[in-house]
Amino acid sequence: MIPISDSRGFASDNYAGIHPDVLSAIASANTGHVPAYGDDAVTAAAVERFRTVLGAQAEVFFVFNGTGANVTALQALLRPWENVICAESAHINVDECGAPERILGSKLVDVPTPDGKLTSDLVRAAYLGSGDQHHVQPRVVSITQSTELGTLYSIDELRALSNTAHEFNMYIHMDGARISNAAASLGVSLKATTADVGIDVLSFGGTKNGLLGGEAVVFFRPELAEQALFIRKQQMQLSSKMRFVAAQFLALLDDDLWLRNASHSNAMAQRLVGAVKDVPGVTVTRAVQANSVFAILPRAAIPQLQSAYPFYVWNEALQEVRWMCSWDTTEDDIDQFAKLVAEIVPASA
Amino acid sequence: MIPISDSRGFASDNYAGIHPDVLSAIASANTGHVPAYGDDAVTAAAVERFRTVLGAQAEVFFVFNGTGANVTALQALLRPWENVICAESAHINVDECGAPERILGSKLVDVPTPDGKLTSDLVRAAYLGSGDQHHVQPRVVSITQSTELGTLYSIDELRALSNTAHEFNMYIHMDGARISNAAASLGVSLKATTADVGIDVLSFGGTKNGLLGGEAVVFFRPELAEQALFIRKQQMQLSSKMRFVAAQFLALLDDDLWLRNASHSNAMAQRLVGAVKDVPGVTVTRAVQANSVFAILPRAAIPQLQSAYPFYVWNEALQEVRWMCSWDTTEDDIDQFAKLVAEIVPASA
Amino acid sequence: MIPISDSRGFASDNYAGIHPDVLSAIASANTGHVPAYGDDAVTAAAVERFRTVLGAQAEVFFVFNGTGANVTALQALLRPWENVICAESAHINVDECGAPERILGSKLVDVPTPDGKLTSDLVRAAYLGSGDQHHVQPRVVSITQSTELGTLYSIDELRALSNTAHEFNMYIHMDGARISNAAASLGVSLKATTADVGIDVLSFGGTKNGLLGGEAVVFFRPELAEQALFIRKQQMQLSSKMRFVAAQFLALLDDDLWLRNASHSNAMAQRLVGAVKDVPGVTVTRAVQANSVFAILPRAAIPQLQSAYPFYVWNEALQEVRWMCSWDTTEDDIDQFAKLVAEIVPASA
Amino acid sequence: MIPISDSRGFASDNYAGIHPDVLSAIASANTGHVPAYGDDAVTAAAVERFRTVLGAQAEVFFVFNGTGANVTALQALLRPWENVICAESAHINVDECGAPERILGSKLVDVPTPDGKLTSDLVRAAYLGSGDQHHVQPRVVSITQSTELGTLYSIDELRALSNTAHEFNMYIHMDGARISNAAASLGVSLKATTADVGIDVLSFGGTKNGLLGGEAVVFFRPELAEQALFIRKQQMQLSSKMRFVAAQFLALLDDDLWLRNASHSNAMAQRLVGAVKDVPGVTVTRAVQANSVFAILPRAAIPQLQSAYPFYVWNEALQEVRWMCSWDTTEDDIDQFAKLVAEIVPASA
Repeated sequence: MIPISDSRGFASDNYAGIHPDVLSAIASANTGHVPAYGDDAVTAAAVERFRTVLGAQAEVFFVFNGTGANVTALQALLRPWENVICAESAHINVDECGAPERILGSKLVDVPTPDGKLTSDLVRAAYLGSGDQHHVQPRVVSITQSTELGTLYSIDELRALSNTAHEFNMYIHMDGARISNAAASLGVSLKATTADVGIDVLSFGGTKNGLLGGEAVVFFRPELAEQALFIRKQQMQLSSKMRFVAAQFLALLDDDLWLRNASHSNAMAQRLVGAVKDVPGVTVTRAVQANSVFAILPRAAIPQLQSAYPFYVWNEALQEVRWMCSWDTTEDDIDQFAKLVAEIVPASA
Repeated sequence: MIPISDSRGFASDNYAGIHPDVLSAIASANTGHVPAYGDDAVTAAAVERFRTVLGAQAEVFFVFNGTGANVTALQALLRPWENVICAESAHINVDECGAPERILGSKLVDVPTPDGKLTSDLVRAAYLGSGDQHHVQPRVVSITQSTELGTLYSIDELRALSNTAHEFNMYIHMDGARISNAAASLGVSLKATTADVGIDVLSFGGTKNGLLGGEAVVFFRPELAEQALFIRKQQMQLSSKMRFVAAQFLALLDDDLWLRNASHSNAMAQRLVGAVKDVPGVTVTRAVQANSVFAILPRAAIPQLQSAYPFYVWNEALQEVRWMCSWDTTEDDIDQFAKLVAEIVPASA
Repeated sequence: MIPISDSRGFASDNYAGIHPDVLSAIASANTGHVPAYGDDAVTAAAVERFRTVLGAQAEVFFVFNGTGANVTALQALLRPWENVICAESAHINVDECGAPERILGSKLVDVPTPDGKLTSDLVRAAYLGSGDQHHVQPRVVSITQSTELGTLYSIDELRALSNTAHEFNMYIHMDGARISNAAASLGVSLKATTADVGIDVLSFGGTKNGLLGGEAVVFFRPELAEQALFIRKQQMQLSSKMRFVAAQFLALLDDDLWLRNASHSNAMAQRLVGAVKDVPGVTVTRAVQANSVFAILPRAAIPQLQSAYPFYVWNEALQEVRWMCSWDTTEDDIDQFAKLVAEIVPASA
Repeated sequence: MIPISDSRGFASDNYAGIHPDVLSAIASANTGHVPAYGDDAVTAAAVERFRTVLGAQAEVFFVFNGTGANVTALQALLRPWENVICAESAHINVDECGAPERILGSKLVDVPTPDGKLTSDLVRAAYLGSGDQHHVQPRVVSITQSTELGTLYSIDELRALSNTAHEFNMYIHMDGARISNAAASLGVSLKATTADVGIDVLSFGGTKNGLLGGEAVVFFRPELAEQALFIRKQQMQLSSKMRFVAAQFLALLDDDLWLRNASHSNAMAQRLVGAVKDVPGVTVTRAVQANSVFAILPRAAIPQLQSAYPFYVWNEALQEVRWMCSWDTTEDDIDQFAKLVAEIVPASA
């Protein structure tokens, strides 16, 4: 009855399936009658596990998806006449069908950046109208780690941005849909790239790193979480059988599965960029710092490659494509695809 | 790592776990790289399966939870200056933390009812202010089948309500979180109690009937679904790895699993009410037409029973409790609990 | 060019025009170039005048209309997952086209009352779900003084309600669209029926008591007003040429014009009820405590009376009508109308 | 009691007062008891007058202020998952405290422009994501005539933009807070620069051109106005004593007062720019096409000039100031101020 797929590709890390350890954890949690809505032992254990990893003060709320995580996190920080400063390329600005504006009522102030990264100078320039009743009031800086462009903030850059936000009496939110890839690539702990650099609230990504589905909103300042139960429910992000979301995170945080998965997908991106960067006709356009590779290709080569290995065109005008690696990308996937690139691209140039 | 539970109780049908066939279906779908966000073969198969069951014109959108289903469905029918007429006891009115008002911007006009059921007369009385700029405009009748009180609309009652709604140029929405229990109890098909009686949009429940998590919004008039893709995404109800939601529904609709599960939980409720209704001190308060039993008990008996088998007090003032049966409630659960009721209640009266 | 009207009636106190002193004040303020948006000397003087009348701690924000005043006031008190408990007959519940739900995102919990007045017992019964993530959280009690039904809260009743609200950690808001009529009827100062009984925020009505147009939101606890500038602007209630709203209020508060106007309209209601209450076929249905009279009439009499003096049918089923007196209702208006009632009603009975 | 002002300045056209003819019209309408909320003869006459001026198909709704006009107009065109493309400098984007996002729930896509004017090419570049569930859907092009920078769209430019919008199945909205200045400057009728070039909905400005306070939303396609009564009320823009808003517009449209006022303020801006443009140290930065002059000045000169004649610094970094002329700016105002500029600026350079 269930259509079986054996296709391979580089379209997205959420084209990948469920890591076997995660599926096992779901099955293990499938016993007895268990309180719904998070009042259960599995959820308690998962929250405790998060506190071990991210700090004892962390307040953790599981939600369904990345948009839900971002909007729940931002809602805890914002009144509707306050704004969010973010990169123009941010997921909240581009890929969430306007959910932040719709649900929060707040304006996003989107700042053009060359590499998907805000800087203190960019934040300062966007900090406008404080105290003026005609203008929305600056309240949150939202950054993405790793960015939609596959780039990374360094620890120093993160600390500088946190400081700038806090100097302006703003909060700093991190969209960490790929926070595991970032920590793995930086070679630091999850805490080192979030709580320790002054992040106030984190959207912690699970789905793109091997879960069936689940994200976590993590507050590093407990007072910011005081209304989070009501926010999550009102924003339709409260799972009834929450033990099955929590069980996935237990698996992800156990034995560093988060790190193994993320390191692997990062390594696959490195393997890919190494294999194609010198192919004539391929121009790699972004620093490869996490699990994606961006490149400009000859127009004719793109559909040929896509028919064998699906992937997205990122920028139609530039013929820039995105190749995303995931926890289940294999060395063989990379090698076969790189071989194809080497065959097709030079011939199309 | 995962805390194992062997507890049993009657608190809620979402205290139950995942039906084994549903978990198997998830595992079967866990192959290869598959397009995200519903553009995959599993989702296509599940939608097709729904059309077989509910009619070829059905437009189906999978979402995460019941609140998400209701709000997505209502959004497709409503502008913010239009209202929803519902029973005072409706889930949308009581149990969704104000999500409908918050997300839709619309007023709910909640009507007191003795049994959780609207009637044409009640709708007529609540239909006020049409054309008057000072008043919200009547637009949707929302009913719940089976109701929060464990009661059922008959086929004739449904048809009468649909007709009334349509005469007033209103839409009719059905919150079908337990639609399977309703169809099973009425002894009719899912289509007979939804599309065939004139329902415009249905929230089709999965989670309470054996899924890990997943609901479906089903539009019976395709033109109402035109904006549903954007609504679902903006309301943060779009699953990235949607194949795993769709696979659950394939399992539920296969071999009438929906019917077997629902018939079983209904039968358990009948077994329970049969066993306790004549126990001195027990007053059954609602017609038992689906999978729940409501009863008034002596105050002292309640905590004693709860400590053995968790359940909720529905109305503190009346000492009215709710016992909910689920797909995994066993005859042994019922018999042991009924024995306890027979021991404890008369002694507490 | 301007169509001149000489018609008289009892339809509404906003069918009346501008009191001459108010129009003079507008003309007096029409000099020179003056800062917009409230940063002007006329506005400062009006705010100061309000503080003399209502207490030095009052924070005052002028807005356009009654709905704007109520929603601005409530927004300062509420997050969207918090609710407002109000009488079913409240203006915010019935007559604002759903603006509170739409703009605030909050649920209104509307309580049936016999006379338009909440009581502490009614508030206690409606106070539900505190701390439960599935329910909206109780936050504001909103009352109307005088009520839509022409009745009044006594000083003791107001104090009791404030105490109840504050015991529950809720705020109390007063819709004072007709607060002047209330204070005049109670024979107390404006402060005595608002600040002194513990009201937190007041919508102070001007338009129904002789202004061209203008209402004031008055916060009696300054900390509640901290975001009011932004709220007012975002809710589209910020007047650019605010001096002309402020000048109207200066006139209203000068030489007790508010009291003279309100006392007059109250007296006209007393004159009317006195003249008609014993007419055979007239049943006065509400205590006449402010400027309106409610009565049940024979069905045939209503259109005959309306064609001479327009007024509204309040309850079609009961044939209950509302006669509203205003600052410019004359004794002659009353006497002529009463004479007509005495002629027409007995003949129609 | 009313503080009298005799100050003069160039801060804003809403620092000006009420034109005497407008105040007279208000006084003339102040007779008798008149139906509230727009159901009166003055309002009917004003709507009819608008139809004479703008076309028989125009549907006209009076509102309180410019933000209210824009948001009411846009609400009639938009669902919350649809967006508005506008210039970065647009009033809706900068000066409305986020009211559009808050009330509409929609994203504004703000486009940088050199002169405050969108072009067809800019609209095409911003038209993204149509049909993609992850992206807000393009629906409205909103332009301002004359712009916040004192520039004008030509008739040809307007027609081109309308065509582009309509080709893309989008609507075109015009923020005409200063539409009279635009028509006066272009030397065409109000209809020629709105209905005749294909504008769908217009915010028609009154307050900045001599009214006490009032704007009009004008729909040129009647089907777009079908829900406008409810939108206006729910957005808290419905005036109870509407005759007094309508009377102002009757005065404005009578004897071409709109044109006389606007031509005068435009002429004053020309007189000003003519007098200062060659003063050493003054750099005029924008084409002077309506009633404002923008110039860069030596930093030291600005506060000296402001202390004599208040005006705003538009761009702090550039030391660019805005001088706004109004219907009541006199030749003497201009000449005295220009003399001061000639004295102070060269000495500060």
